[in-house]
Amino acid sequence: MSKRTLPPRRFIKPTFEFLIEKKRDGGEFTQEEIRFIIDSTLDGDLPDHQLSALLMAIYFQQMSAQETAELTEEMMLSGEVIDLSHIAKPKIDKYSTGGVGDKTSLVLVPLAMAAGVVVPMMCGNEHDYIINTLTKLSAVPGFKDELSIDDFVKQLEKIGGAIVKQDKDLAPADAKYYAMRKATGTIPSLPLITGSVLSKKLAEGSEGLVIDVKWGNGSFIKDLEQAKQLARSMTRVGRSMKRRCVALVTDMNQPLGDTVGTALELKEAIQLLKGEGPEDLQELVLKLGMEIVRLAGVAGSTLSAKQTVQRHLTDGSALEKLKDLISAQGGDTSYIDNPEKFGEAKHIRKLPAPKRGYVHTINAAMIARGVHILGAGPSGGKGKTAGKIDYAVGVSEIRKVGTQVKQGEPLMMIHYNDESKLEQALEYFKSAYRLAPKRPTPPPLVVERVA
Amino acid sequence: MSKRTLPPRRFIKPTFEFLIEKKRDGGEFTQEEIRFIIDSTLDGDLPDHQLSALLMAIYFQQMSAQETAELTEEMMLSGEVIDLSHIAKPKIDKYSTGGVGDKTSLVLVPLAMAAGVVVPMMCGNEHDYIINTLTKLSAVPGFKDELSIDDFVKQLEKIGGAIVKQDKDLAPADAKYYAMRKATGTIPSLPLITGSVLSKKLAEGSEGLVIDVKWGNGSFIKDLEQAKQLARSMTRVGRSMKRRCVALVTDMNQPLGDTVGTALELKEAIQLLKGEGPEDLQELVLKLGMEIVRLAGVAGSTLSAKQTVQRHLTDGSALEKLKDLISAQGGDTSYIDNPEKFGEAKHIRKLPAPKRGYVHTINAAMIARGVHILGAGPSGGKGKTAGKIDYAVGVSEIRKVGTQVKQGEPLMMIHYNDESKLEQALEYFKSAYRLAPKRPTPPPLVVERVA
Repeated sequence: MSKRTLPPRRFIKPTFEFLIEKKRDGGEFTQEEIRFIIDSTLDGDLPDHQLSALLMAIYFQQMSAQETAELTEEMMLSGEVIDLSHIAKPKIDKYSTGGVGDKTSLVLVPLAMAAGVVVPMMCGNEHDYIINTLTKLSAVPGFKDELSIDDFVKQLEKIGGAIVKQDKDLAPADAKYYAMRKATGTIPSLPLITGSVLSKKLAEGSEGLVIDVKWGNGSFIKDLEQAKQLARSMTRVGRSMKRRCVALVTDMNQPLGDTVGTALELKEAIQLLKGEGPEDLQELVLKLGMEIVRLAGVAGSTLSAKQTVQRHLTDGSALEKLKDLISAQGGDTSYIDNPEKFGEAKHIRKLPAPKRGYVHTINAAMIARGVHILGAGPSGGKGKTAGKIDYAVGVSEIRKVGTQVKQGEPLMMIHYNDESKLEQALEYFKSAYRLAPKRPTPPPLVVERVA
Repeated sequence: MSKRTLPPRRFIKPTFEFLIEKKRDGGEFTQEEIRFIIDSTLDGDLPDHQLSALLMAIYFQQMSAQETAELTEEMMLSGEVIDLSHIAKPKIDKYSTGGVGDKTSLVLVPLAMAAGVVVPMMCGNEHDYIINTLTKLSAVPGFKDELSIDDFVKQLEKIGGAIVKQDKDLAPADAKYYAMRKATGTIPSLPLITGSVLSKKLAEGSEGLVIDVKWGNGSFIKDLEQAKQLARSMTRVGRSMKRRCVALVTDMNQPLGDTVGTALELKEAIQLLKGEGPEDLQELVLKLGMEIVRLAGVAGSTLSAKQTVQRHLTDGSALEKLKDLISAQGGDTSYIDNPEKFGEAKHIRKLPAPKRGYVHTINAAMIARGVHILGAGPSGGKGKTAGKIDYAVGVSEIRKVGTQVKQGEPLMMIHYNDESKLEQALEYFKSAYRLAPKRPTPPPLVVERVA
């Protein structure tokens, strides 16, 4: 861990008005100016109303690749930067922009560990309706999602992996920026997203990063072109910061896999770690897993990468690593050995198809919002239930795009405990499905690879 | 005076995030939304950082004519609206976006009064280096620039004119918006300028408004096209609020008249009120004066308007009205009868032409900044002298664009009291002048009339 020490330099401080007007008029900030902006934010010298005007000006005028890289670096250097260079093994992390039903991290972290790759994963806050990896892991009794940086590093040394909450001492500038962006309509700015994500990820000490940029109705990026741009922006900045980076642009126009929930998704992840589970997830785990092992250098050719991934999924070594990780963080691994211990919701009922036809589209965000209402996710309740997670609720057996159904057949199964929440959730689930008489072409899962 | 009373209506309050995103994406606000934004600003419900993000989004996405009119109206209705309908005479005000050496208001207000037009003029804050009308009038001992709204109306009833500071109860929303715009680089937004200016001007109770939109190096509007757009925006909004409005787009690429300062400009205004003074000012006074008397309906034809203006300037009736106004506001009118009472600066020296040639351009802003440094204007000093005005300082005998000069001949005369300030001021004055071997075509004074 090191905080930066700067050599003294001549830099005449500009006014914040000047900086806002410069960006408003399409100007490009110098490295000193970006450093000054970040420092002033941390010091509290840059007032909120000027920061927000600046963020909106950046939204409209963008930032160059150079500016984005410098923003990322300065945000990273605003806090602790973890040094893992004493660990000999390759250190690679994985990041997803967030998707509905995406449980790949639960599979990829232990898979990479099994392949000899160290994964120092810290997770940010939940994005709205997306249930994150840590929330899913919290279904395991005893699991601790917070480690001191010292304990985090020790665990990486010992077992090669950790999944914990973002440490507040890493890239503290981002916490301020993220809160401001949320309040001021500037979340969807590509340079600001890049800076926010990479400043934290690259402070974790990994040498490389595999990025899953999702586009579609279940992602906050609805536009494919924008997803491609973000993938390019992130890999470019990662490279300019001397990290190995590869990004896959993947489909999020329907939930991933057959389940959405907490324990339900954890169970599906365990299936995947046994080489089973839904096809789309198997494919995505394979593709992302291959990127990780190749980036780490533990597999050279495409074939060898594929074999490495498949071997660790079928020989039980990846599953064993998940248990190591959970055990190291205080969790009860008997739940992984016997997933039925997670229990079931009181009620399970089907969502019947309103007519016969093919599943034409599934609005993944609607599915997620419905599951949220049932009580999955820490912000899934109001008043007394606020912050409490109902681990058993969710949906399973999701009929994916292209599936043929008869009228009355289940589009999915709804797991719920609280009758009073069902009606509202049902509205979301119903509105998520569109059936059509003709079989649609299912969208490609991996659209583009950016390296 | 009346505050609005609103009928109850169904309006589901949107979140501020929603409103910011709507404008960010180019959406058009409804009247209810604009009212909600203004009300929330006044209530303090709309946090500064969200207001500033909204203002920046407006800067980039503009506002429609309809939105601008509604913004103006809601800002006006945020405070007192003066009712002058009991005064039978026509009530017309004049507004200028601000220019260097512009002393026309000192001439036009008494001129209009002499022609039987009531002029309820309130002046806003100084714009940076522009010395405003009230600062010039403050050179007259005893002159009071603040009146209660009651006393303001009484003076209008009695003598037909008043020039006072903007009352804080008029359009109070604008004070907040102006301060925010100044800090966030959103001053140059046409809809926001329109809303800011007209909300205050139209709250003064006039039936019509003559607007002087200045463009050029001495105006905050450097671009002619933008000046034309602002003229159109203002007259359109004025009309939609049922006021008679006309705007002239005029040149501000060199100072107006021969002087820049406080007492120096006041003396030049007195000359104009005697039908004398520099040509450019005489022309502008005539053009703007004709617009006022025609808008008021006291003159029908162009010829009759011209004769009306010229008569009141040559028969001494306009000058008499200036004394009425100054006297009503407590000022010593003997200074108007004997302008030499204003006194002279301790030192007067020339700015010598560095070579022979024609005055090709004069950067009016540089002249104004130099005069500012000499001590004219309330913010013309630092430390002990802050807020104190040195009435005698300034420049006179300005050689205008197109004038031929020999090397060493004066480009203008500099009036100063404090030797220590001279050097810095000289730098500005020198840099303001560009001489060229060929006679340039002087720019037209009135570029466009928008009605």
